[in-house]
Amino acid sequence: MRYKITIEYDGTNYNGWQRQNGNNSIQGAIEQALKQLSCEDIEVCGCGRTDAGVHAMGQVAHFDMQKELPIHTIISGTNFYLRMQHLSRFSVQKQDISILDCSIVDNTFHARFSAKQRYYRYLILNQKQPSALECDRMWYVYKELDLDSMITATQYLRGFRDWSCFRASSCQAGSPIKTIDNAQLRREENKIIFEINAKSFLHHMVRNIVGTLVDVGTHKTTLDDFQRIIDSKDRTKAGMTAPAHGLYFVKAVY
Amino acid sequence: MRYKITIEYDGTNYNGWQRQNGNNSIQGAIEQALKQLSCEDIEVCGCGRTDAGVHAMGQVAHFDMQKELPIHTIISGTNFYLRMQHLSRFSVQKQDISILDCSIVDNTFHARFSAKQRYYRYLILNQKQPSALECDRMWYVYKELDLDSMITATQYLRGFRDWSCFRASSCQAGSPIKTIDNAQLRREENKIIFEINAKSFLHHMVRNIVGTLVDVGTHKTTLDDFQRIIDSKDRTKAGMTAPAHGLYFVKAVY
Repeated sequence: MRYKITIEYDGTNYNGWQRQNGNNSIQGAIEQALKQLSCEDIEVCGCGRTDAGVHAMGQVAHFDMQKELPIHTIISGTNFYLRMQHLSRFSVQKQDISILDCSIVDNTFHARFSAKQRYYRYLILNQKQPSALECDRMWYVYKELDLDSMITATQYLRGFRDWSCFRASSCQAGSPIKTIDNAQLRREENKIIFEINAKSFLHHMVRNIVGTLVDVGTHKTTLDDFQRIIDSKDRTKAGMTAPAHGLYFVKAVY
Repeated sequence: MRYKITIEYDGTNYNGWQRQNGNNSIQGAIEQALKQLSCEDIEVCGCGRTDAGVHAMGQVAHFDMQKELPIHTIISGTNFYLRMQHLSRFSVQKQDISILDCSIVDNTFHARFSAKQRYYRYLILNQKQPSALECDRMWYVYKELDLDSMITATQYLRGFRDWSCFRASSCQAGSPIKTIDNAQLRREENKIIFEINAKSFLHHMVRNIVGTLVDVGTHKTTLDDFQRIIDSKDRTKAGMTAPAHGLYFVKAVY
């Protein structure tokens, strides 16, 4: 039987989604919890392979399991074993990975390859002093930011084109050509919220976009420059990679 | 010179505001940072002595310092030493206590005794599965809650009267008679927000109120019972003490 799960996580204490030899990954933690629940070796395939420190509100994954268990048991049992893992690692009971939902899907469903759209959100905290409550949740930028320029720049981030300027050198995508279906930026009090969706993204693409948008906000980069950076297809012309802890995988649409 | 500071903190890793022998307190951490900054032994007096795990968005405190330093240096220097303390304790750089503001005040100003109003907020996360991102920030209640009843009960929480039913046995206040100036409850998606303000509160008063309001939400307690609990002045009749990690000291007014 194939299952689709929706997962929320706080990426702070993890080396990203992907399991690699002996690292501390979200994927590995969920696989271990599912193994404790089912006594099977289960491979979990995620929609978005988020980097170390990146969070998720609605990551999607699928897995195959022989044992038949009620959906409710899969959710609450996996969440229980995830809490136990955290307890044994940190001596504190905490649910920093949580299975929000689970459903049975067709064997043709693939969390990564069937995804039609991926939605990301990036949060910037723009105030004079750092926040204690949001320090692992938003990028703290104390410099004054020109929101109007950032909103205008965001409008350039649409459509089917070569986005090499925002592509990490480590990117393994077959092509730098992607379609950004929507990108929006707004301010709510001291919080700047950037939202973007596309079928798929290049590695570090959202964080590189945000780093460059902040340069527009501080007037280090003009709007003309921003357009020229996109046209250049040259990563070295764009801004820094914004920190991982401001980024959220929001949801996937199938 | 007397200074007034506004402080935000994540109470998760602290045994509350108040310094006691060798405990790990917010007050102690700030005093240590101020000592590193000024080379003076400084006593910090807070407005609300929050319990272990309780957070603050705008705690207020005052202290006297001989050394004259620019306000900007006091803020950024104290924040720097607070980050260093966290780094030496947890091997991670994090600002879980942050000085948001500082100003020079008259010698008659007293953070605790001059406060005219204290504002608290309590956050409940009411959804089927636990949240990974909010697990240290809200009380997770999975049972369905009847919001209308909770809102009605909240309206009983006003005025000058004996609030012994919500008073912890450890409370050191001279009298159980307090005036609640305002109390409100609302829902935003899965989040239930309870806000209350008064000149001062009894020990655990807000958390005991919230525990009892949740009993109203689950229909364990009727609205008539809720009124009878208040009238009884009997702590054993009211609900459980809601967990500390959902409570926030929002601000004080002078």
